[in-house]
Amino acid sequence: MFQKNKDIPYQADEKAINNINQANQKSLEILQSTNPILVDVRTAIDVVPNMDSNLILASGPPMSWKEYRGGQKNAILGGAVHEGLADTKEKAEEEIEKGNIQVSSCQEYNCVGSLAGIYTASMPVLVVEDTVSGNRSFCTLFEGSSPYRLNYGSYNSEVENNLLYLKEVIAPVLGEVIREAGSIELKPIMKRALHMGDELHSRNTAATALFVRELIPYLVNQSHKGGEINKLIDYLLTGDYFFLRLSMAAAKVSISQISNIPYSTIVSSMAFSCSKFGIKIASSDKWFYGSLPHLEHYHINKNHSEDEIEFMGGESIVMETFGLGSFAQVAAFPLQAYQGGSPEKMIENNNRMYEITVGEHKDFKIPYFQYKGTPLGIDIRSVLEKEITPTLDIGIASEKGMQIGAGLAVSPIDSFESASNYFYDKYLAT
Amino acid sequence: MFQKNKDIPYQADEKAINNINQANQKSLEILQSTNPILVDVRTAIDVVPNMDSNLILASGPPMSWKEYRGGQKNAILGGAVHEGLADTKEKAEEEIEKGNIQVSSCQEYNCVGSLAGIYTASMPVLVVEDTVSGNRSFCTLFEGSSPYRLNYGSYNSEVENNLLYLKEVIAPVLGEVIREAGSIELKPIMKRALHMGDELHSRNTAATALFVRELIPYLVNQSHKGGEINKLIDYLLTGDYFFLRLSMAAAKVSISQISNIPYSTIVSSMAFSCSKFGIKIASSDKWFYGSLPHLEHYHINKNHSEDEIEFMGGESIVMETFGLGSFAQVAAFPLQAYQGGSPEKMIENNNRMYEITVGEHKDFKIPYFQYKGTPLGIDIRSVLEKEITPTLDIGIASEKGMQIGAGLAVSPIDSFESASNYFYDKYLAT
Repeated sequence: MFQKNKDIPYQADEKAINNINQANQKSLEILQSTNPILVDVRTAIDVVPNMDSNLILASGPPMSWKEYRGGQKNAILGGAVHEGLADTKEKAEEEIEKGNIQVSSCQEYNCVGSLAGIYTASMPVLVVEDTVSGNRSFCTLFEGSSPYRLNYGSYNSEVENNLLYLKEVIAPVLGEVIREAGSIELKPIMKRALHMGDELHSRNTAATALFVRELIPYLVNQSHKGGEINKLIDYLLTGDYFFLRLSMAAAKVSISQISNIPYSTIVSSMAFSCSKFGIKIASSDKWFYGSLPHLEHYHINKNHSEDEIEFMGGESIVMETFGLGSFAQVAAFPLQAYQGGSPEKMIENNNRMYEITVGEHKDFKIPYFQYKGTPLGIDIRSVLEKEITPTLDIGIASEKGMQIGAGLAVSPIDSFESASNYFYDKYLAT
Repeated sequence: MFQKNKDIPYQADEKAINNINQANQKSLEILQSTNPILVDVRTAIDVVPNMDSNLILASGPPMSWKEYRGGQKNAILGGAVHEGLADTKEKAEEEIEKGNIQVSSCQEYNCVGSLAGIYTASMPVLVVEDTVSGNRSFCTLFEGSSPYRLNYGSYNSEVENNLLYLKEVIAPVLGEVIREAGSIELKPIMKRALHMGDELHSRNTAATALFVRELIPYLVNQSHKGGEINKLIDYLLTGDYFFLRLSMAAAKVSISQISNIPYSTIVSSMAFSCSKFGIKIASSDKWFYGSLPHLEHYHINKNHSEDEIEFMGGESIVMETFGLGSFAQVAAFPLQAYQGGSPEKMIENNNRMYEITVGEHKDFKIPYFQYKGTPLGIDIRSVLEKEITPTLDIGIASEKGMQIGAGLAVSPIDSFESASNYFYDKYLAT
């Protein structure tokens, strides 16, 4: 039921309901049939349309500079220094205020940001293409297992050295390996990983192993590169999160296909910055803003406390719009150790996500649910009617700038209400 | 409660109970602390103690030649031809009857047989060592994903060519890679695989991927071998069962450590041949025989039927004695697609296995059970008292000689009764 004008049930208008249902079915079918493949690793400015040398992208719906704060602001300023746009973070802020350095939203550039989500022109990006539409999305590289990472709001010499290492050592040889392979299909890896303990957001352990497995023949062929290939192998095998960036780009390029679908009430974007949450729906290009998520349960690493927790942005929740992450939590019982919760809670949560989605993914299936497809296509009608909002498997950052844990977040209902009001005015008001 | 002499409850004898409990605790601690590592790949006759050039090993407790039949008999005869001990299977049978070719039981030679389980002198074997005891166990190589394999009772030119390929191409280069690595620790891989959808008997998908991942740096270093290394990579990536042979050798070398422990009622071996099932207990070297298992539920591949099913042996059920396989089924919900069953049945079955074991593994844990350790150390007392026998995740062979499915088998109680009677006479009778 739509929020606005509750006294006039929209159900009365059969024709509108039919239009909505048909549009949502179309959205669902598009989401079910995308086929993302990794085609390259390149420098952002060379491949991201409209990327500019003085442009910095950050996570979250578009907003003004003055709304950035804390770790995300620090990461943007660090990104500017990393890019050579300013000598210090202080100078970077001046240049941003003067308009000499631009700050914009990843999602508006077919990019998808992990936490703070910083893109600068010279950063390497994974290039993921949907073979159905031919469209592309991009994601930066996993920064490795150090708690200090630009995407977690840190910027120091360790972070800078690591960014240089990714740019100068890892990305060139990874790019060569991928180009030699031609491309790597991501859907089969994602499909299998769901049967191997991953939900592809907070857990990508199996997907990373399966991805590396696909690369082996090409790694061996490139072995004349000696040291470089060994560094790439070390990088790919460090931590178990390399694949997350591919999951994100795969979800982003898929969900991007449901745009310009009049009458569709399916969520086509969810993202948050340090200040606000936002969603889009398939029938509109507008962002609908709301308040930040809250944490339902979480796990905080030793030597840290919940007092440190800071929301500094995140677009990896694109996974949930694509029926993964907390929407496939029951595929990933090992997540308990990483983000808290219990099997019972995970099952309950996952079942609730079926209540707010219009269908199931045809390829992504959950063994514990007897191979039922993951819940796909968040319908804002159901969110409002049932007062169930999407849950989100997210990493937790410290205000000091590092990862200190992970948890299950719940998106607030206000952005969905805002979308619903807009939808009502546009399609249903008489 | 022991089967024999039910009128004199052995519980009355506090001292004997204490002896049993202490011995079982000792068995449990040994099983919890073994540390199997892969150290080499070598020709059986060079590494398996007491292996002989005219000796063929097969799955199951020791028995006479006339008791072998069907696919297992065919595999033994095929093994003899493969080894060059006879020109034809008919001549091989004559030589066996004359005593010129010996047939014995894998388990008596620190080997562990998959299904029919054939070892001949020139076959390559994986060499797995327990670093705690220094003892070794051996297992032949996975024959690949063809339904026609010697271990499934087939012997034809395809099987022969594949055996030669393993011996001449795969084993030498795999051996070099392993020796370059020094050794590969198996416990960390097994531990992680349990969080990635494997129970390490009927599902080794994650373990195989993780094992190959460990090898990557050495594969790359050996890449000057060109074609051979690529063939090895193809072999390792074919199917997802390479690791099962390592699981089996790891379980075998571990379970072998609980021998000569007076008063222990813990099962130290389970195996079956085409004719009989057998168990050993930690306080005796004797085999206790019983009837073959029956299938509780199963999945038969398309174009085959249950009428074809033939039991032709199997020692991979060593996994269950080590707290894995069906004892860790709840770690592997994807098994439904491979061997039938439902999540509810799997949970029920796994819970029942806790009722017949004396403890839990300290490192092998089940996420769905909130990281409880797998049930470890089958106590024949509990089996008889509760009338719950160990279940077994097994592959299913056709009488025509090939894999046609997989299922959950239940071991019959008679071998446990036989062991209990022996134990009563030896330790409890007054």
